[in-house]
Amino acid sequence: MKKKLNIGLIGYGFMGRTHSNAYHQVKHFFDVPYDPVLKVVCGLVEEEAKAFADKWEYKSYVTDWHKVIEDENIDVVEICVPNNMHAEIAIAAAKAGKAICCEKPLALNVSQAEQMVKAVEEAGVPNLVSFNYRRVPAVTLAKMLIDEGRLGKIFHYRANFLQDWTISTEVPQGGMGTWRLDVKAAGSGVTGDLLAHCIDTAMWHNGPITDVSAMTETFVKERMHTETGKVEPVGIDDACTFICHYDNGSLGNFESSRYARGHKALYTFEINGEKASIAWDLHDLHRLSYFDHSDESIVRGWRSVHVTDSDMPYMDKWWVPGLQIGYEHSFVHQAAEFLQSLADGKPASPNFREGLATQYVCDAVLKSAKNKKWETVKKA
Amino acid sequence: MKKKLNIGLIGYGFMGRTHSNAYHQVKHFFDVPYDPVLKVVCGLVEEEAKAFADKWEYKSYVTDWHKVIEDENIDVVEICVPNNMHAEIAIAAAKAGKAICCEKPLALNVSQAEQMVKAVEEAGVPNLVSFNYRRVPAVTLAKMLIDEGRLGKIFHYRANFLQDWTISTEVPQGGMGTWRLDVKAAGSGVTGDLLAHCIDTAMWHNGPITDVSAMTETFVKERMHTETGKVEPVGIDDACTFICHYDNGSLGNFESSRYARGHKALYTFEINGEKASIAWDLHDLHRLSYFDHSDESIVRGWRSVHVTDSDMPYMDKWWVPGLQIGYEHSFVHQAAEFLQSLADGKPASPNFREGLATQYVCDAVLKSAKNKKWETVKKA
Amino acid sequence: MKKKLNIGLIGYGFMGRTHSNAYHQVKHFFDVPYDPVLKVVCGLVEEEAKAFADKWEYKSYVTDWHKVIEDENIDVVEICVPNNMHAEIAIAAAKAGKAICCEKPLALNVSQAEQMVKAVEEAGVPNLVSFNYRRVPAVTLAKMLIDEGRLGKIFHYRANFLQDWTISTEVPQGGMGTWRLDVKAAGSGVTGDLLAHCIDTAMWHNGPITDVSAMTETFVKERMHTETGKVEPVGIDDACTFICHYDNGSLGNFESSRYARGHKALYTFEINGEKASIAWDLHDLHRLSYFDHSDESIVRGWRSVHVTDSDMPYMDKWWVPGLQIGYEHSFVHQAAEFLQSLADGKPASPNFREGLATQYVCDAVLKSAKNKKWETVKKA
Amino acid sequence: MKKKLNIGLIGYGFMGRTHSNAYHQVKHFFDVPYDPVLKVVCGLVEEEAKAFADKWEYKSYVTDWHKVIEDENIDVVEICVPNNMHAEIAIAAAKAGKAICCEKPLALNVSQAEQMVKAVEEAGVPNLVSFNYRRVPAVTLAKMLIDEGRLGKIFHYRANFLQDWTISTEVPQGGMGTWRLDVKAAGSGVTGDLLAHCIDTAMWHNGPITDVSAMTETFVKERMHTETGKVEPVGIDDACTFICHYDNGSLGNFESSRYARGHKALYTFEINGEKASIAWDLHDLHRLSYFDHSDESIVRGWRSVHVTDSDMPYMDKWWVPGLQIGYEHSFVHQAAEFLQSLADGKPASPNFREGLATQYVCDAVLKSAKNKKWETVKKA
Repeated sequence: MKKKLNIGLIGYGFMGRTHSNAYHQVKHFFDVPYDPVLKVVCGLVEEEAKAFADKWEYKSYVTDWHKVIEDENIDVVEICVPNNMHAEIAIAAAKAGKAICCEKPLALNVSQAEQMVKAVEEAGVPNLVSFNYRRVPAVTLAKMLIDEGRLGKIFHYRANFLQDWTISTEVPQGGMGTWRLDVKAAGSGVTGDLLAHCIDTAMWHNGPITDVSAMTETFVKERMHTETGKVEPVGIDDACTFICHYDNGSLGNFESSRYARGHKALYTFEINGEKASIAWDLHDLHRLSYFDHSDESIVRGWRSVHVTDSDMPYMDKWWVPGLQIGYEHSFVHQAAEFLQSLADGKPASPNFREGLATQYVCDAVLKSAKNKKWETVKKA
Repeated sequence: MKKKLNIGLIGYGFMGRTHSNAYHQVKHFFDVPYDPVLKVVCGLVEEEAKAFADKWEYKSYVTDWHKVIEDENIDVVEICVPNNMHAEIAIAAAKAGKAICCEKPLALNVSQAEQMVKAVEEAGVPNLVSFNYRRVPAVTLAKMLIDEGRLGKIFHYRANFLQDWTISTEVPQGGMGTWRLDVKAAGSGVTGDLLAHCIDTAMWHNGPITDVSAMTETFVKERMHTETGKVEPVGIDDACTFICHYDNGSLGNFESSRYARGHKALYTFEINGEKASIAWDLHDLHRLSYFDHSDESIVRGWRSVHVTDSDMPYMDKWWVPGLQIGYEHSFVHQAAEFLQSLADGKPASPNFREGLATQYVCDAVLKSAKNKKWETVKKA
Repeated sequence: MKKKLNIGLIGYGFMGRTHSNAYHQVKHFFDVPYDPVLKVVCGLVEEEAKAFADKWEYKSYVTDWHKVIEDENIDVVEICVPNNMHAEIAIAAAKAGKAICCEKPLALNVSQAEQMVKAVEEAGVPNLVSFNYRRVPAVTLAKMLIDEGRLGKIFHYRANFLQDWTISTEVPQGGMGTWRLDVKAAGSGVTGDLLAHCIDTAMWHNGPITDVSAMTETFVKERMHTETGKVEPVGIDDACTFICHYDNGSLGNFESSRYARGHKALYTFEINGEKASIAWDLHDLHRLSYFDHSDESIVRGWRSVHVTDSDMPYMDKWWVPGLQIGYEHSFVHQAAEFLQSLADGKPASPNFREGLATQYVCDAVLKSAKNKKWETVKKA
Repeated sequence: MKKKLNIGLIGYGFMGRTHSNAYHQVKHFFDVPYDPVLKVVCGLVEEEAKAFADKWEYKSYVTDWHKVIEDENIDVVEICVPNNMHAEIAIAAAKAGKAICCEKPLALNVSQAEQMVKAVEEAGVPNLVSFNYRRVPAVTLAKMLIDEGRLGKIFHYRANFLQDWTISTEVPQGGMGTWRLDVKAAGSGVTGDLLAHCIDTAMWHNGPITDVSAMTETFVKERMHTETGKVEPVGIDDACTFICHYDNGSLGNFESSRYARGHKALYTFEINGEKASIAWDLHDLHRLSYFDHSDESIVRGWRSVHVTDSDMPYMDKWWVPGLQIGYEHSFVHQAAEFLQSLADGKPASPNFREGLATQYVCDAVLKSAKNKKWETVKKA
């Protein structure tokens, strides 16, 4: 019998569901070293917490997150609440000796992020930031190809994250589902919510970003706040574009917007190297585009790789070639990696310090946009 | 508390996994009228049956399928074994009053399929054939669009199911994973395995097929048989192409092959109507291509619909727009529909009689290929 | 100075324009052995013939095609009139010792086609059928790849030619632009007009077709005839689908329709071989899709080859990599090949005998559709 | 009879060919108000000038461009030489009262461009800069859709121009074919050569660019110079990325590189508006991607418009729906517009003043990259 590992989930929104599903599915598909047990879920509204616990087979529910931290039976704390709550909970969990998986971005701002890193490092607890897109098989495959040197020297790494769901001025700020538009809860707009993903993957693939020149815009200046019921100024960035240098000499170009009509969640990246190029997009996450200059010229072209064969990252665990997986699988893979790292006693990645590195880039981006200057990125 | 519904699974191969996963996930994502309980799994090899039960959280396991049928606690029998075993198990299950979900194709041949229909209809038990692709949201959406009359009169309905996994002469016939190449276990090759899916969906979308002219080929004539250890003649069709008429006057063209280099599981269909056309393929199952002739001409073109918004079939149950689902979700949707049909006391679809209709088409196809003549399809 | 070659064009419709443009452009882009001179154009309506001659820089015009044949100065006769006029003109031109380039399909029917072959072979005059799609660089590249054995044994060769311009019942039959709907002028519908292209390319790529089973349909049974002003029965096939065997053991599947809503001129083919596959479509004629199974598995996928580099067939004559050519270039390439063949004294391809081979397949297809039987294809 | 218009071409390289072809084809396909006559071509090497004149049917050739300007019979001067020669020739041609069509970018730098504008405005001669991509039917269609207000308020306009032909360190600088790598001949690298196109189209579509923050890179620092035979420092930008604001409040993002492995001439743009979005790329120049948010949600998606129907810009002049045109057609359309503007006495667009506006943006971009500061763009 495998050792049981008790999970405490804080937050029952969108991310609460992805994490819960991951712990259910991971044991059916992966040979994980622990048997994860969904012990307790915590949410503010009791009725909803109870309904969530019923639906997702949690053994109990609470409405005060301190109870999860204080519960000696809990081994792992999953932090799936708005960004402004990450630091307080994570620091408490670290002090209580829990392993922590925290949703991205790591924190509301750099200062909180630094405290969180300090807390987990001092406590010596396992810590992970949930940059789940690293675990999409095609994205992991890209990392493998780069690490094998197949691209040669890299010249360009670009990424976009485009959405269109906030174009209507009727969308409110604040509250369940729309807290991402409230600067007090989110810290920033697309920079922390979407570009943070792009930046994490980019630095994983291509190394540190050294300096940035950015531009942000808030297209809708005022929105109804669901908590006050009043129309209030919007404090987040609706769109953010930045150019940058990487430590390895390559050039970066990033853009995110929630005003890109026609795109729902179009996270894309493209990497151009001396010998080969790679492109990917989240709207067809099971494919990787690959161009290999060493192909014979008359049959050379971008290859659309259907990342479903059993020799692809993670794909030996699922179905048969040609049968694609979807979004939530990235969380299942993350859970599998996290459980394995707990058993091995090796740090999972990206840990809080890596999450801080991304936070430094986001911070430099926002500062550059404000000051209309190039900003150097602090090293984590 | 919801009423529990006890599930007995027979077969622990590829399909055993998809059905097991479906019963786990369905309660987390759908508001189902029952609480499905994975009571028992049956498989030939005890050790493997036990491992499967452990992994998939079945409460018990057996190695003789009669025990599943005889167990009074079992409400639903899931038949996930090779085609040659469907009839015997289904007929016994019907007699024992079980609800039945049987993998496709319904049977080894028409004669067995007819007996199965007779058995379930006489017993009055709920019955479903697992043509899961109907439950891919984009495929269900296609059905909605057709039923709303958006295509107008239909002229053409084409479908392909192309694979390439048996091109090597080293692939054996018979046994786990390769029983589909053994005519004794499978009944036919691509016709029953792959075209059956295309035919089921086509008749669901476009009505009965009336007559067919077909051609089959067995490119590799002999393969090692895993049970006898000897090289034996191959009895299945490696490829099958047929043209046909539908009852509504439209023309059909179907092709399946396991020798279509470059295609893993490329199930595609395209429907051309007077007013609009639809196309879909399994390699990007979350998209539907739609052409609407009533669009203004200068901006008219094929639309690539990313079927992930909450107003799409089934998609309100999953994530947010832009985040795709994968293959196994079709089985989750099927389980949701099946559970609901049990509660409502209404037949699920496709039931065994509909499965028989597909079997009649397959039978006419194989007969036509053998006789080199047009064959009329029997009505179910 | 290059020797002048005098061209006489018969027919000033769509094809008259493509051939005229070809002779203008060919000398600017190719090193052709002759200087083609547009000497005379012939068309029924004097005013229109004159306007065409002015626009296209023909030195003269006539309204009686016999005058072109009788003109001793004319070296080459281009036949760009409706199908029912091909035989009479071509036979006269052959007797007069002219080189002939005849639009496809070769003739109204097999009997005429046989007489045309006899005439040119007896006269020993150069003769070419204008199956221009062979000269699209990507299609020529496909031929090269096949001939080099890159595909290995071929299992499947499929082709489609889909349009949607005759769905409206208001489209008339007969007359300029719509003679293709008049069986007296065209001989058949999509079979001779569109499938003839697919068949010619298929047999060039993959060798002879041996037998066929076909189905045709005329969706709109009556249309106004522009010459009589009366509603008359439609004698052509609106759609035609057929399955077939090739001499090399591969399977064929062809479909053409003018009722495929959403497709303007979608000629596609796909070839599946043991080692590689190829796909192409006319709507993006400058690309070739190529799948090479020998690619390393984790980066294996369909390649989209942008056929614009100077090492691609014909492309050293045009622009720079990335800059695509269009439809009419296929005729320029054809003119270049034809002029070269005249200088070399070697037959151009496809000659009339090859055009007859395609006519035999079309004939078998139409016969099979009528008789609902498999038909053997006569050898040319 | 139409009035003849005598053309003098200066430069017989790549652009000399596109302009020559345009004047040949334009009269066959368009109803132009003049009969353009290819009177003289000028090139440095007599033998090559003669060969070009023969091939392209020029009536004469010269090796000194002053002779073209001095020739009273010449009505129009086409400037197709490297950028460093534009100003001198154009100013002389203006003084001689010639109509001028000058290749892009307008000049080597802002100072020269200003003098050129002054010269043509003082002389009152017709003047055009050859930003040919405006005349690609899909790009013109985009302009129409924007002007009709279909996109609503515009939030984002992005463009890329990606190539990979200079990655090898073996490519020299200077001389025929590679003068674009020599800063003395070209003035800049990708900024003037490629981004100038993107900027011209962007400002045509979306109005003035007001300020920019840019980054450039020269990946290969030294290359053999074909004139000196020595390895010399490379003075051009190999890659350039910039972000910007438009006068209308939208955000811009531009990138060009000759180090984007896998892209030959991938000019792309994407425009996101409140109500609709548009995307295009040069590798499939006959298509326009269009997303209309007012489409019913369940069938809403990006439309791929095959811009070949006769109601599309310029396309009534060519073939039939589905048959694409290519790169050189943009020059034919430009010639048609230019000839019409000469007859109408209305300025063609983009004229030299518009070309200067693009030069101001390029200048600000290069200055920003050098100074690592945001730069305001001067108004033309």
